[in-house]
Amino acid sequence: MIVEILTTGTELLLGQITNTNAPYLARELNRLGFDVLYQSTIGDNRERMAQVLSLALSRADIVITSGGLGPTQGDITKEVCAQIFKRNLYLHEPSQNKIKCFFAQRHAQMPQSNLRQAMIPEGALILENERGTAPGIIMEENEKVIINLPGPPHELEHMFKHAVVPYLQDKYGSQGVILSRVLHTYGIGESALEEKIADLIAAQHNPTIALLARPGEVIIRITAKGDTEASAEKLIDQLQQVIVPRISQYIFAFDDTPMEVAVGQELLHRNLSLSLAESCTGGLITSRLTDIPGSSAYLCGSIVCYSNKVKEEHLGVPQDILINQGAVSEETAIAMATGIRRKLNTSLGVGITGIAGPGGATAEKPVGLVYMAIDGPAGFQCHKYQFLGQRTEIKFRASQAALDMIRRYVRDLTLQEEI
Amino acid sequence: MIVEILTTGTELLLGQITNTNAPYLARELNRLGFDVLYQSTIGDNRERMAQVLSLALSRADIVITSGGLGPTQGDITKEVCAQIFKRNLYLHEPSQNKIKCFFAQRHAQMPQSNLRQAMIPEGALILENERGTAPGIIMEENEKVIINLPGPPHELEHMFKHAVVPYLQDKYGSQGVILSRVLHTYGIGESALEEKIADLIAAQHNPTIALLARPGEVIIRITAKGDTEASAEKLIDQLQQVIVPRISQYIFAFDDTPMEVAVGQELLHRNLSLSLAESCTGGLITSRLTDIPGSSAYLCGSIVCYSNKVKEEHLGVPQDILINQGAVSEETAIAMATGIRRKLNTSLGVGITGIAGPGGATAEKPVGLVYMAIDGPAGFQCHKYQFLGQRTEIKFRASQAALDMIRRYVRDLTLQEEI
Repeated sequence: MIVEILTTGTELLLGQITNTNAPYLARELNRLGFDVLYQSTIGDNRERMAQVLSLALSRADIVITSGGLGPTQGDITKEVCAQIFKRNLYLHEPSQNKIKCFFAQRHAQMPQSNLRQAMIPEGALILENERGTAPGIIMEENEKVIINLPGPPHELEHMFKHAVVPYLQDKYGSQGVILSRVLHTYGIGESALEEKIADLIAAQHNPTIALLARPGEVIIRITAKGDTEASAEKLIDQLQQVIVPRISQYIFAFDDTPMEVAVGQELLHRNLSLSLAESCTGGLITSRLTDIPGSSAYLCGSIVCYSNKVKEEHLGVPQDILINQGAVSEETAIAMATGIRRKLNTSLGVGITGIAGPGGATAEKPVGLVYMAIDGPAGFQCHKYQFLGQRTEIKFRASQAALDMIRRYVRDLTLQEEI
Repeated sequence: MIVEILTTGTELLLGQITNTNAPYLARELNRLGFDVLYQSTIGDNRERMAQVLSLALSRADIVITSGGLGPTQGDITKEVCAQIFKRNLYLHEPSQNKIKCFFAQRHAQMPQSNLRQAMIPEGALILENERGTAPGIIMEENEKVIINLPGPPHELEHMFKHAVVPYLQDKYGSQGVILSRVLHTYGIGESALEEKIADLIAAQHNPTIALLARPGEVIIRITAKGDTEASAEKLIDQLQQVIVPRISQYIFAFDDTPMEVAVGQELLHRNLSLSLAESCTGGLITSRLTDIPGSSAYLCGSIVCYSNKVKEEHLGVPQDILINQGAVSEETAIAMATGIRRKLNTSLGVGITGIAGPGGATAEKPVGLVYMAIDGPAGFQCHKYQFLGQRTEIKFRASQAALDMIRRYVRDLTLQEEI
């Protein structure tokens, strides 16, 4: 079955609020096995809404609208939909009573305009709104269905889950299941990654494969359709088993796992403690690591050394390195890593120094140049990067590279022990 | 002129990523006086994209697409648009060279597929992409215009601002001007703020007033329509002069100025240096401050003290405070603030300690309890907060409160001197 999502409201059309209803409905419908092929957004205008609605009914089995069920003159969705199916509106007593109760419970006078919300198209199913005053509406006509949901996300999501999903499953039965799994990679570009699995992409049918470059990573999304959750899982597993061996060194996590979680798991698993000396990343790496509950188990602390004085006095970077090689140099990064490791007495120490820009660059040291070092039981390493982008992008990319450096260092420790 | 926005990409259609391009374009186009009447989202499917594009061209003067300019097989937007206008694609040498340079700068081999991005429809205008490899495209045909922009928001926004806006203004002239100004407030709730300006909201016409609660702030948006930028500005100025005196102590910034910029400006203006000792915020405050270019002028450094040992050994928090009052206490926050100030020898020192959760809470010290202290030339202060939300929300709210604490401390220093 094909569903079209129609979000209404002038504030959406003007971009004044972010549309979270369309992606929510799309995700949930896909998960239930319904196909969403189009999403549209229109303002509170009768003529244009009728036009978009007619078009949607011509190419979809089910049209779900959000918004425009409120009490004001601008709330027209229900009326326009009723007109399309040539239904009159009537005052629905139970809905009217419910709205009156809603205001009475809040010791408030019900504005007369709120009664508009109790006007229901003839022959419609009514979906109770447990989180607000506007009931939802379902109208069926010649194998086509219109579902009107309220605009506020917490009302819409609750109503979708508790009223629309049972309705859809009852009417259409199971549509099978669509599942996705995400492979997160770092250290390889989108097109280079595509080349490594080009044959699989060319042959894709079910599951499908999608590549997507995101800040600090490239993801591969495997999406499978099956009669049951288990059969979809199995299809994904089979394809994953072919993909992973080709690119295993680049994969740092699966599904909703960000890099900081992947690193934390490695550290926890290996019982390693960590400290960082951050210059150009300004505390971002430590902040990302401490976003994760329980991170105090492996993260002892960090020093953000935003001046040479702090680097010298509190991390022990030798003055002659700062003078001769400079604060942005391999030698400084290594001295920062070994310095913080010694100072906080941790298994691993990390040092990051670079030029986040826009100022501070020289001919030899451009904006985006970053050195990062790690010191630990297997000795120290230093890596040089040249990132592009704005200041905050460079900070983020450097933080991602540093986290991946930690992850690889820890993984190599494990590999060495296994040998 | 009527503009239609067409966002493409299966990941948008499936709801896997949030569509920020459509609201960005809608806001900016409205500001320029163009009318946006429809927004649509479709997947990477040639037939459906062609159908939606034809419809859009039939009801709008200008169609702006986002996404689908990448190097992969799924990137079809440019080709579909070229077909609609019956144009062939040719290899555009300068774009090819630019893409080659992009990879050369990164010392990377250009995958052959990236050359797809240098294929340009005949007769098209080419918009240089200063933040990525995919150039933008403008095609004109019989008074209709198609503009293809890349999908990544930072590429799209930069290209829109620097290439599309000049194009539109050159081709269509001024469409009248809609301007907005945002007043950022901290320390007052949305409804309390609304009460203070209820009479102005009731009487609004042009300019209009909108209140919006956002994480860590409540904003007031004043929007005015005028024939010229100057006339719209003047309308906003007049209303602002009425609003500001009523709520001046809560306003920390105007327009796109985040709290970390407002704080940085105060510090720079007063020639004060800052250091922080962060526990529950895990480096987030320092990272936010270092997002701002030139922040090394006032931020010397920070210590993220994620263990009692670091608090004691490197910040000098007395052991008996950690034992008797605990790491999350007024006494510890103050000792952290005075300790880091002394250690890094800065004008101001800040200490933040709390329970970010979900673990670590006790009956007396619930999740979200945060103490923050500041020490400086006017002595020390300590504030106690109880934040609600998830771990990262608590971290963010605590960082916002701490930045506002610094801002107020510095402002009070100035006020004291003026007296």
